[in-house]
Amino acid sequence: MATPAFSDVVAPDAEVAAAARARQDRLTKPAGSLGRLEELSVWAASCQGHCPPRQFERARVVVFCGDHGVARSGVSAYPPEVTAQMVANIAAGGAAINVLAEIAGAGVRVVDIAVDSAAAGPATAAYKVRRSSGDIAVADALSPDEVEAAVTAGQRIADEEVDAGADLLIAGDMGIGNTTAATVLVCALTSTEPVAVIGRGTGIDDDGWMRKTAAVRDALYRAHPVRSDPLGLLRVAGGADLAAMAGFLAQAAVRRTPVLLDGVVVSAAALVAERLAPGARAWWQAGHRSTEPAHTLALTQLQLEPLLDLNMRLGEGTGAVLALPLVRAAVATLASMATFDSAGISGQSDS
Amino acid sequence: MATPAFSDVVAPDAEVAAAARARQDRLTKPAGSLGRLEELSVWAASCQGHCPPRQFERARVVVFCGDHGVARSGVSAYPPEVTAQMVANIAAGGAAINVLAEIAGAGVRVVDIAVDSAAAGPATAAYKVRRSSGDIAVADALSPDEVEAAVTAGQRIADEEVDAGADLLIAGDMGIGNTTAATVLVCALTSTEPVAVIGRGTGIDDDGWMRKTAAVRDALYRAHPVRSDPLGLLRVAGGADLAAMAGFLAQAAVRRTPVLLDGVVVSAAALVAERLAPGARAWWQAGHRSTEPAHTLALTQLQLEPLLDLNMRLGEGTGAVLALPLVRAAVATLASMATFDSAGISGQSDS
Repeated sequence: MATPAFSDVVAPDAEVAAAARARQDRLTKPAGSLGRLEELSVWAASCQGHCPPRQFERARVVVFCGDHGVARSGVSAYPPEVTAQMVANIAAGGAAINVLAEIAGAGVRVVDIAVDSAAAGPATAAYKVRRSSGDIAVADALSPDEVEAAVTAGQRIADEEVDAGADLLIAGDMGIGNTTAATVLVCALTSTEPVAVIGRGTGIDDDGWMRKTAAVRDALYRAHPVRSDPLGLLRVAGGADLAAMAGFLAQAAVRRTPVLLDGVVVSAAALVAERLAPGARAWWQAGHRSTEPAHTLALTQLQLEPLLDLNMRLGEGTGAVLALPLVRAAVATLASMATFDSAGISGQSDS
Repeated sequence: MATPAFSDVVAPDAEVAAAARARQDRLTKPAGSLGRLEELSVWAASCQGHCPPRQFERARVVVFCGDHGVARSGVSAYPPEVTAQMVANIAAGGAAINVLAEIAGAGVRVVDIAVDSAAAGPATAAYKVRRSSGDIAVADALSPDEVEAAVTAGQRIADEEVDAGADLLIAGDMGIGNTTAATVLVCALTSTEPVAVIGRGTGIDDDGWMRKTAAVRDALYRAHPVRSDPLGLLRVAGGADLAAMAGFLAQAAVRRTPVLLDGVVVSAAALVAERLAPGARAWWQAGHRSTEPAHTLALTQLQLEPLLDLNMRLGEGTGAVLALPLVRAAVATLASMATFDSAGISGQSDS
């Protein structure tokens, strides 16, 4: 199988951004008074190449599901079989991401990339790479063929969504143990000592935290020789779900489709995606800041400031989909507010 | 005219809150992983007295408009006539609050409480108290009759909205110079020296900032004798719009109707409302944190943590209405997510 290749990422349109900024300054409100919404509206317009921007009508959440061998070492508060149970829950519409996406007006697709189960149906498992990624504390997560298959899967899923009309994409994650693998990637790509950034994941106790820290340390040691090689890093110390997310996020940028990032797992994949397709991060906004310390580290490296900070740590894309109404609100101001001229309103005093 | 009186505020239902917390812990996600959304869902249920809560379907924004004599002293970046122009813009649907409320699914009502204009129509001006409140740096904002009329106006507007079916209320503000009066109220009610908290309002320059600081200092000196008397404070150093907002926020709590607070002007009125109707703040959430330093001071005193922090400073209710989707999202999780039992999902490991 060929190494996954990404076309060059084109930057969002700078001329449209300038036009959007100029239009923001003519809207009937003090210049700058909409704060982050103004930047968001400029970003949306420049991504679309069109000012005023069109409203986002077809946002899609893709939840990438996979198990991790390291979960058998007690790094999570939940047993590994919860991954497959939650895949079924998402497919049935009962998970947080279903409820939050519905109220935000976004569609949800769940994909089994590496769940340790044979139970999922063909629609969900069309891109399945294997049953569970390997235990990164002691062995590679994936073979060379598998990492390529996983990145290519994410790439194809992004293409399918964009080809079907998606105008904004969100990646979500589900997988017991996935914050352990994500933390390894973040530490490797930001040259950070693990002990400072190991989070509680879904809510582990002190003993679990020590096991998680040991697993991250061991995986990081194993990953050291490949830390400059994004595919090598995913193979040695990542996992199929993280590899697919990285391919998805990179390809979204190639396809000029804006993305809202979710928590630490998606943001770890985003760090890798930026190396697979340099410049991709210009197409992303950070939906929220989770309570995982490695998440902040990843966002800082990506130079993204989160829109929300609600002490969430759920994953599935929930933090990103909560930020979707803010993006829509930003678009609406630039598209629909009156201008000082059109409303006949006096400007700032000359003082 | 009789002094406006408020019935006792009943606290949101503690038993329902306990049931809502217990239900949150049974939903298919790690306990606590929805962060602030969990608290919000409990608050919504306890305000409604019903678990699971019903979705908020009839949110209403009331924009209280008024001029301030102090604006003639150059405390704002905009000339006073902008207030009346913006009232017309809101009535015509072209302002930020119209666009943001529409996309959030909330209705907007604009009321002229003390605009320095005779132009507004009867629907808007039914509760008009006077043309512009007095210049608080040198004279009382209102007469004793006027402050009572203004508070009563706000009280009646809240009653009208609740009687018409509103299930969540937002107060907004529009008035050149109103952050100056709001800052005086916040300083008086939190015993704060003004120089530390004078903000840039709509964007004043350094000279304007010095004029604003002097005006706040002078008004605060005048307000000192009435600082423990909420109606006296509104009369001497507030304004008719602020008095009406205070009456509105207090009455919303009396009517057991949840409220999202907006920026510094609404939050200053909220500080007064909590004194008019003690316990009212349990019915409020802070929609956002604005860039005005006095806003944070007011929210700290009210013990409210803002949901959003987007560097906004527009007023009109814009920061509050942006938070409405978060409240709806919180309600949706508690009302619609599957439980561990119903979805057949394993709980936390015993470790």
